[in-house]
Formats: sequence, structure tokens, C-alpha cells
Amino acid sequence: MSYTAPVKDMLFAIEHLADIAQVAQMPGFEEAGLDTAAAVLEECARFNEGVVAPLNVPGDQNPSSWKDGAVSTTPGFRQAYAQFTEGGWQGLQHPTDFGGQGLPKTIGAACVEMLNSANLSFALCPLLTDGAIEALLTAGSDELKSTYLEKLVSGEWTGTMNLTEPQAGSDLALVRTRADAQPDGTYKLFGTKIFITYGEHDMADNIVHLVLARVAGAPEGVKGISLFVVPKFLVNEDGSLGARNDVHCVSIEHKLGIKASPTAVLQFGDQGGAVGYLVGEENRGLEYMFIMMNAARYAVGVQGIAIAERAYQKAVAYARERVQSRPVDGSVRGSATIIHHPDVRRMLMTMRALTEGCRAMALVAAAAYDAAHHHPDESVRRDNAAFYEFMVPLVKGYSTEMSLEVTSLGVQVHGGMGFIEETGAAQYYRDARILPIYEGTTAIQANDLVGRKTARDGGATARAIAAQIEKTEAQLAASGSEAARATAARLTAARQAFLDVVEFIAGSAKADPNAAYAGSVPYLMLAGNLVAGWQLARALLVAEKLSGQGQDDAFLQAKIATARFYAEHILVRAPGLRDEVVHGAASVMALAPEAF
Amino acid sequence: MSYTAPVKDMLFAIEHLADIAQVAQMPGFEEAGLDTAAAVLEECARFNEGVVAPLNVPGDQNPSSWKDGAVSTTPGFRQAYAQFTEGGWQGLQHPTDFGGQGLPKTIGAACVEMLNSANLSFALCPLLTDGAIEALLTAGSDELKSTYLEKLVSGEWTGTMNLTEPQAGSDLALVRTRADAQPDGTYKLFGTKIFITYGEHDMADNIVHLVLARVAGAPEGVKGISLFVVPKFLVNEDGSLGARNDVHCVSIEHKLGIKASPTAVLQFGDQGGAVGYLVGEENRGLEYMFIMMNAARYAVGVQGIAIAERAYQKAVAYARERVQSRPVDGSVRGSATIIHHPDVRRMLMTMRALTEGCRAMALVAAAAYDAAHHHPDESVRRDNAAFYEFMVPLVKGYSTEMSLEVTSLGVQVHGGMGFIEETGAAQYYRDARILPIYEGTTAIQANDLVGRKTARDGGATARAIAAQIEKTEAQLAASGSEAARATAARLTAARQAFLDVVEFIAGSAKADPNAAYAGSVPYLMLAGNLVAGWQLARALLVAEKLSGQGQDDAFLQAKIATARFYAEHILVRAPGLRDEVVHGAASVMALAPEAF
Repeated sequence: MSYTAPVKDMLFAIEHLADIAQVAQMPGFEEAGLDTAAAVLEECARFNEGVVAPLNVPGDQNPSSWKDGAVSTTPGFRQAYAQFTEGGWQGLQHPTDFGGQGLPKTIGAACVEMLNSANLSFALCPLLTDGAIEALLTAGSDELKSTYLEKLVSGEWTGTMNLTEPQAGSDLALVRTRADAQPDGTYKLFGTKIFITYGEHDMADNIVHLVLARVAGAPEGVKGISLFVVPKFLVNEDGSLGARNDVHCVSIEHKLGIKASPTAVLQFGDQGGAVGYLVGEENRGLEYMFIMMNAARYAVGVQGIAIAERAYQKAVAYARERVQSRPVDGSVRGSATIIHHPDVRRMLMTMRALTEGCRAMALVAAAAYDAAHHHPDESVRRDNAAFYEFMVPLVKGYSTEMSLEVTSLGVQVHGGMGFIEETGAAQYYRDARILPIYEGTTAIQANDLVGRKTARDGGATARAIAAQIEKTEAQLAASGSEAARATAARLTAARQAFLDVVEFIAGSAKADPNAAYAGSVPYLMLAGNLVAGWQLARALLVAEKLSGQGQDDAFLQAKIATARFYAEHILVRAPGLRDEVVHGAASVMALAPEAF
Repeated sequence: MSYTAPVKDMLFAIEHLADIAQVAQMPGFEEAGLDTAAAVLEECARFNEGVVAPLNVPGDQNPSSWKDGAVSTTPGFRQAYAQFTEGGWQGLQHPTDFGGQGLPKTIGAACVEMLNSANLSFALCPLLTDGAIEALLTAGSDELKSTYLEKLVSGEWTGTMNLTEPQAGSDLALVRTRADAQPDGTYKLFGTKIFITYGEHDMADNIVHLVLARVAGAPEGVKGISLFVVPKFLVNEDGSLGARNDVHCVSIEHKLGIKASPTAVLQFGDQGGAVGYLVGEENRGLEYMFIMMNAARYAVGVQGIAIAERAYQKAVAYARERVQSRPVDGSVRGSATIIHHPDVRRMLMTMRALTEGCRAMALVAAAAYDAAHHHPDESVRRDNAAFYEFMVPLVKGYSTEMSLEVTSLGVQVHGGMGFIEETGAAQYYRDARILPIYEGTTAIQANDLVGRKTARDGGATARAIAAQIEKTEAQLAASGSEAARATAARLTAARQAFLDVVEFIAGSAKADPNAAYAGSVPYLMLAGNLVAGWQLARALLVAEKLSGQGQDDAFLQAKIATARFYAEHILVRAPGLRDEVVHGAASVMALAPEAF
């Protein structure tokens, strides 16, 4: 088996850290307790391990290809996608009104991780469909909803996000695609969009493009952008497919990784205009797009965790099998499997700790999302919304950056074999490299963290999180075990570093924006590091409490060891990051642009 | 121009940090002063910028290929290699006795960097030849020397290192290739070697393989390994080429990067035995191989600097040209080139500081190598040898690990375009990934640093280096400028962290080897970080002294800004690394192998 879903670790986090029992008390989630989570995860694991994971290497070796405007996906993808839709996996988190299963994100996020571990390229198609569903649910008219949502929720049709243009990437103010209003209330779109994931493919009957464009006379900049639905095939009144719309894939990209997922250049309106339907109101497109973006950003963070998990599993398997050199402690007389060597252990523990830490962070964030949307008490919803909003840039930014470290270590564990493509470790290294870039680069996440999530409320949300962390420190101190004490010390130091940074950022974001934004990415890395380490510290406390009681002792001891490793080897990066932000801003901008 | 050699920065380091004037006072180097360095570097830059660099992308797109035992290199490589040999570049650092130019490593290392920046894949061929020359110079008989050295020094023939076998990578004790003594004093070799860089190619008339093998009856393990010369074509008494030897390339690897360099599987003895000539004495092969390895390790470190430099140049060019978003400080009203954005600046400064820091470290190490071999005073030679030996794992380990960070940032600066292969940033990311693996992984370098370089002398060399660093701190304090004070503070903290680690490692290497080796890589990263930062701190002092006097003020101010950035953003990682080593050893090995 090339991938074994970490169901036990996921359920541990879902039960003890994300507190699924609380989620199951919220209206609409009455059936979504731990038993449901376990059943769904087991079924999801079976599907992804058996059907999707085996297509990961073939997808890399025989990527999607373009011919005469049509894109053929890797052999096997069509069939696997059909099984995906038949299993109802696309609708897992979507409303039952449109055929979904209405499960909480706390469960759905674990399923998203499995799908991405199994096959990052394959998983991107459903990921984009999720975003389209979110946008239509929030801002679509009843007509748009009734025309598109059921087909998207079932996965029969897939969705895309059309933001980027050659001159407009992070900067959407520069979008030029034009939408001309027609007398019948529709629009005709003209322009070129690039980097459109699954912008064209052969896995579904129709593709529902969500497209940013400008209506004539709209204000300049981001306030003049509207959002449109542009289906590949127009939809007749009876729901059947009609004429081919004037949107065409003129090429796909030759990429470093995720090669099986077609990245399309789409041309709108070369033959008279692509028919588009306005989503919500004119000029509010960016706002709607952010709904998709926020869902997608969280999901891309989960992609980081997913690829890290798979890289970790592969590295462990190799380290268990490869025989090389005697252990330095003399514990084996001859050559031993390399898992006996301290530096191999350090690498594997780093991979494991980062992956489990980010997973715990993501699942706790998912529970906050569920509470923010479903809790009956408004103030609880508000607090959870603030917490979740703060987590989105951390889940996206930190988990994807950590996936670079983990997949790189995955190659390193393999030694020379890691550099040989057939081994497979290199694919994860290549695939992961897009994650800190798309759906908003790490710098864009960090800007969000600095501006909207920290400076705007003067650091209040950040300090509230720090206060929660302080409570965990007190619990660790009360435990008194060596592991708990070691963890508490690093957590305290990291939290204090975080607070120093929050104060600096909140104080300087307006007064000296260059200084605040010079430290934005180190701030994000510190915050993500801290929150992931905090969740592992909570896991350590739970594991200590449970251990000795049941048959899961090996798992619980491993959780304690992993949490302590994270504290001693990863949380310790926090003070250095603080120093960079608080005492290093001036040197970032000291060199004049022409001096580089 | 896709690459511009950083001649000015190299000469600055050669003059002020490596102190070429001192080198030029040593016997044999009388002509090798700053003027010679400048002339050689200018000529070298012209050749590499004009001839070698343009082949870098073609080499990636159209790699070496294998057919029926023959390897065809990328079109253009043959011709460029001919120009390389005609220019005498292979012999730059080799003895004039065999046709070389006998220049110091202090100059040669800069030339090696340029060749590798221009084309990592191409440069590997001369790099391996250098190693073969070193081994023959040190241990070869007069006959071997007279048969092979001139042809190798001219570059007419190329060299290889045949260490690895499928079961023997880092662990050479497991080498199985067999050498049977023949009545005429030659040997016949039988076995399979893998990962042989330029093990077969079409750029030279003959290939001189240096091969590790076991003579029948030799002791087990590394003490039974001998070194042999196995030429692709036997050499007649008159020096002309004779029969094809029984060594054949049965395949080449499909790799993540450095695709143009053929990585061969070589089969020895399928047709009766490959004729081999013993180098030195039987069973001392590993010792001789380490001569090649040490030269090659330093050179691979320089490869890290080289690829980092090229990635940096590409990222700067893109950041100067790509227009996206308004600067946060409002300094430009509309969208600006992205070099105006703080986080892009942070990334570029990180790339620049790491590259310049490692370059300075490598050139200072080169000067120590020259003094260790050429200084008339034996105690000076001994001190410099100890310093150089300490530097080799740092130059190799730290510079190659940093090249992963720099090439990854290079992709990130390009945003989505970085992930598109045609952009070229991804090639550096792929190419660099082999550097911390071959010629001894980072863990192998770190073992060397812990065992032979630190524990063996009880930390004496390490402490002597720290004492030198302390003097630089005093000079920075005396300067009193803001940049000097900021740098001094971080340098002091990093040095103290280093000393804490040295004490821990020296104390535990024997008593608790798992604990010492668990921290080996963090120790190496700390030591490399410190020494590179120290050299930039020295550069800052020189730049402050010289500034205001000549026309190089922009360069000198940039050096000061870069040194300060390094201190404030990179040296600050040192205390966290110390904590990992000194207070985190137990958690590295806490998880049992079966619990992963």
C-alpha cells in the first residue's frame, strides 16, 4: 500500500482536540458525533487508499495532455472520478438541500486530507468545485442555485476559479477581462485567464467557471470587479446541456509538479463572447471571490498536511528497509536499518511532528468554523468566527511552508535514491512547491494576518489566543511530568515571542508599514508554529490522562514523544523569528532596489 | 545574459577576507596576487557567461541520453568542453609539473563557483576529474602519474569516482566489487557501481575511473578496500589509446535535476574482467578515496553557493520587472515592480546574504587550504590544516543546505510563474536538491564534524575559531556604528550558542553517542551559520573602513547592509539550534523504531 490513511491520529484530534462532541450538539450536526466521524473516515480511507492513491505516480509520469482544445487526463482518472462522485464524496460538507450530506468541516477536513494525500493532482478538481459551491451558496440567485448547485454538489459537474490574468496575479486590481451586459440580463465575456486549475478536462460533463471580470464603466481597481458564472456548456431550461459556450482552453502549462492536474489558459469570447451570468451584484465580485478563496485557502493548507503525511510514510518505509552502517551507540553489531541512526530519527521525527501539529491545528480550526456557522449562541459564533479567521492564514501559510521542509527531508532520508524519479520521493518535493504559491502566496497570507487579522482589532484576537495557550501551560505545569515540563517551557517562550510580535505589528502597521510588513512572513511562521505546538501540547495532556487505561498505550506514548519533540525542536525557532520581526525590520529595506 | 559572474564580490572576499596578499607570499604562489586573481576571474567570467551558461536550460530540456552502452550529452556540451580544455581551465589549481597552472585554491575556488553557476551539470565533469587528479597525485605510482596525469590535467581525459554500489552508499564497508590480482601485477575487476557521475559520456577520448574494490582475502569492512584505476580504454606504452576495457555503462538514471549530467550504472567484468591498476597499497583505498572526497566535498559546497547565486540573480531580475500591487508605504501611487514590496525584499536579502556569507566562508577556507599546503612555517601549516579540516563539513553541509532555502525562495519570488518549468527558477530548485546528498549527505558531514573535527581534539579547534570570532566582535564594538553594534550583538549570541554546543558534543560523543549525534546536523547548521555570519561581519568592518574613500561606495554600503541583514535575520537562528542540540537530544530517540 503506497498510502495508509492516519485514521487513528485524525480521530484522536477530532475527538480530543476539536471536540466533536461539542460540534454534535449544534443544530444540524446531531448525527455528526464520533461514531459518524469514525465510520466516514474508515470508508474514506478505503476509497482513497484503494482507488485514488494508486493513480498518483501514473499521474506524474503520464500527465494531462492538450490537443485541439481538449484535455485528456491521466488514464484512470475518469473512472476514479466517477467512483468519487458515486460515493457522494463531493457533497460531504455541503447542504442536504442540494443533495449533500451536511457533515461538519471537522469531519470533512480529514476526508479532504486523505484525498490529497492519495493524489494531490486528482484532489484539486473537487477542491475547486467546493469553492464554486460556496460562492453560489452565498451569493448566487435562486436561479443560479437551482441550475448549478445540485450538479456541483453531486460532482457531476466541476467548478473552477478564474482570477489570474497574465498581468494580474496577487494583484486583482489589474484584472482586465471584460463583461458586456446584454439586453436579456446575461453578459458576454472577453479576455484571457491563466493558471486555471482543471479549466478543461474530460472527467465531467460540464465545467462551471466562476470568473472575475469588469463590467463597462465599473470603477477602477478591485471595487470594479464582478463575478460571473460561465459554464462550458450552456444549460437548457430542463437542465440538459445546450450549446458549447465561447470559452476555450488554448494550452496547458508544463509544470514542476502536480502534473496530472491540467493548468489551463482559457480564452473567453474569441467567437463573439462567452455567455456569463452575474453572481450577486455588480462590482462585488471580489467579496464573493473571497468566500471561495477562504474555503480554498484552508483546503490548500490541508494539502500541505496531506503531502507531508505521504512523504513521511514513504520515508519511514524506506528507513525501515534500507540497511546502512552501524548504529553509533553500538546497539546493533553489524549494519542496521537506517531508522537506527540518530539523524534519520531526527528527520523522521521532524516530519512527523510538523505533520501532526499542523493536522491538529487544522482540525481545531475546522471545529471553530463549524461553531461559527452552527452554534446557537451568537457570541459563541462571533468568537469562533474570529478564531477561525485568524487560523486561515496560519493553516494555509504555515502548513504549506512546512510541507516544503517535510518533503525535502523526505528526499534526504532516501539519500541518493531520493534524487531518482522512480523512487517517488522527488514527486512529493515537486508537487508541494506550488502550495505556498497558489490561492495566495505566503506573503499574501501574511499580509492578511498583519492587516485584517491583527492590526484591525489592535491584536485582540491574537492576545485572546495567547491567553488560551497560557491556560494550557498551566495545565502542563500541573501535570508535572518531564515531558509536560519540557513542553511548557518552550510553549511559554514561544507565546511570549508571539506577544512581542503582536505588539510590534499592531503598533507599527499604520505608523511604519514597511517595518510591519517586513516581518509579516516571520510573524506568520511564528504564529503557525506556536498554534501547532500548542495543539500538540494539548494532545500531550490528553495522552497522559488516557495512558495506562486502555489498549492504545503505544499510540498515546508516541503522541507524548511527538509533542515533546515538537516543543524541543520546532517551537524553539520562535524566539529567533521574534528577533527578526521586532529587531530586524530596518535591514530588510535598507538596500536600495537598484543595489541588488 | 542569464548569468553575470559576481567578480566584484569575489575579489572583495579574496582581497580582504581571504587575504590573497598573504597567499602570494608563499613559495610557489609569488605570481598569484590580486592582479592575477582579477585577470583570471575576468577571463573566467567571460568564458562561463558566454559559453557555458547558455547551455544550462538546454541541458535540462534535452538531457544526456543512453543508447547501446553509449551516452550522448546535450548538444553543445562537447564543443563547450573542448573550449574548456583549450582554455586550460581544468589545470587551474593543478601542479605545473603536469601542465597545470598551479594557482592557489583561493583563486581557483572562485572559478569553480562561476563554472557551477553557469551550469551545474556541465561543471560536474571537471569536478570529478579534479578528484581523480588529487588521488593520483597523492597516492599514484610514478607510472600511473606519467600515464594519466597530464591528460587529466589538460582535460583531454576525464575522471570519475566509483564508490557507491546498490547496497553500499554512505556505508562503504559494504562494498563488494572484487579485484583479482593477475600475474603481471594488474588486477581484474568484477562488480556493479551505481550513481557514477559522468561514468560514460562523449566529451572526452578516455575516462579514468577510480574504483573501490576488494582484493581476495582482504579484511572485512573498510579496512579491506583498495583503490584502482580502471580506464575506459587501455593506454598503450606510447600513450596512445588501446583496447576497450571491460567496463560498460548499462544505464543512466532519470533524475529530479542536474539532468544533463549522466549518472551511470557501470558494470565491471562482464566480459572476463576489467583491467585495473592498483593505486598506492592494497587495503588503503578508503584513505586515498578520502583525498578525492575531501576535495570534492569542498567543491560541492561551492556548487551550493553557485546555484544560490544564479537563483538570486534570476529572482532579482524578475522582481525588477514584474509589476504587481501598490507598495504598503504608499511610496508609489499605482502598481509597482514587486521589488518594492517588503516581503519580496526580505526574500531577496535572505538569498543574497546567505550566498555572500557562504562565499566568504568558502574563500577564507580556501586560503587556509593554500596556507596548509604552501606556508613555509610548519606550525602555520598545521593550524591552517586544522582550520580547513573544520571548514570542509561546514562548506559542504551548510552551503548545500542553504542552497535549498535559496532556490526555494527563488521559486517563491516568481509566484505562479516560478512553478512553470519554462521560467527556469524551478530548474535551480530541482538541481540543488542533490547537493546535500552526494559526496556525503549532510548527516555524514555532521558526523565528521562531531567525531573527527570536534570530539577528537576535545573541541580545541572549535574553541580556537570562537576565539577568533570574539576578536571580530571586539572590532565591531570599537567601530560603534549602528550596523556594527547590531551585528556584534547577534554574533556574540551565536558564538556563545556555538560554544555551548561544542561543550555538549565534546562531552557526550563517547559517553552518550546517541545524544551527540542526534544534534549533529543542528550543530553543523549552527557552526556554518556562525562562520558565514562572522565572515560577513569582517566584511562589514572592511567596508566601513573603505567607504567614503573611493568610487565603490554603493558596493560597500550594500555589503554593510547585507552583513547586518545576515546578523539580524539569519544569525538569530543560532540560539534555537543550540537549544535543539543541548536540551533536545532525548526526544530524538524517544520513539521506538516500530512506533513510527
